[in-house]
Amino acid sequence: MKHTLSLLVEDKAGVLARVSALCARRAINIHSLAVGPTHEIGRSRVTLVVDADQVEQATKQLHKLVNVIKISELASEESVEREIMLLRVNGAARRSEVLDQAAPFGAEVVDASSSSVAFQVVGHPRHLAAFLDAMRPFGVIDLVKSGRIAMPRDVAANGTKE
Amino acid sequence: MKHTLSLLVEDKAGVLARVSALCARRAINIHSLAVGPTHEIGRSRVTLVVDADQVEQATKQLHKLVNVIKISELASEESVEREIMLLRVNGAARRSEVLDQAAPFGAEVVDASSSSVAFQVVGHPRHLAAFLDAMRPFGVIDLVKSGRIAMPRDVAANGTKE
Repeated sequence: MKHTLSLLVEDKAGVLARVSALCARRAINIHSLAVGPTHEIGRSRVTLVVDADQVEQATKQLHKLVNVIKISELASEESVEREIMLLRVNGAARRSEVLDQAAPFGAEVVDASSSSVAFQVVGHPRHLAAFLDAMRPFGVIDLVKSGRIAMPRDVAANGTKE
Repeated sequence: MKHTLSLLVEDKAGVLARVSALCARRAINIHSLAVGPTHEIGRSRVTLVVDADQVEQATKQLHKLVNVIKISELASEESVEREIMLLRVNGAARRSEVLDQAAPFGAEVVDASSSSVAFQVVGHPRHLAAFLDAMRPFGVIDLVKSGRIAMPRDVAANGTKE
């Protein structure tokens, strides 16, 4: 099991270095990491995916870093989790088959040549894994994936939708 | 001007710590960073966005790290650049106006309650910035963004499309 930690940090040089050095030193295995700005000036958000049995230790240690303002653990069922992937597959021979297979995943063609097709696909990490499995038989040429990002659902949600 | 560096690295504990520590030490300002697995076992991809005038220094220094296998600089016009953002806006009062404004951006509702609406929006970093500007007047409650990911276009592209 993997858990998601959402860190609100000060947008200062070296914050990321301190977070990742601390994890390396404590042998906390980072499965994915995404960093980006927030809507507040001077604040960044770091989304970390770590092993479930290391969440407590990670939270405790990361709290000690001065530039870390807040840490939230986001449970899968109470948050929206998303990733984006760019995937280039061999498209020389079986192009129409590739496109037919990709369509149900909501994959969008972002680049195409006579020899390959590149898709953008967005969704829950499971969705991306299923898309990769569907494309693998055609020959994957290149793959770039963002780290997972997550946002807590509105607890007062009446009509939650995904 | 910001430039994108795409690093192919060994998927080993501490690689991220070494990359970010090196940048911190050399005062290389990281605007965004995304880490994820590739289609090859034991290989991860780190996408870094840095200032244009620091690209050369960053490339030279990062090449020295043993776990860095390959570094490519991706020019904007020769690559597909994407980000994903989750954005929660106040949706208590002017909900239909919020939804009308969001529609042209291809934003998708991922969570909704009586007081707020959360969107997923995907695209070029410029597209996300424009969406944020459009939503700001309604009141932004929460924002989570992935780092930028990028993939080189197929140079043999006949019918490139975005």
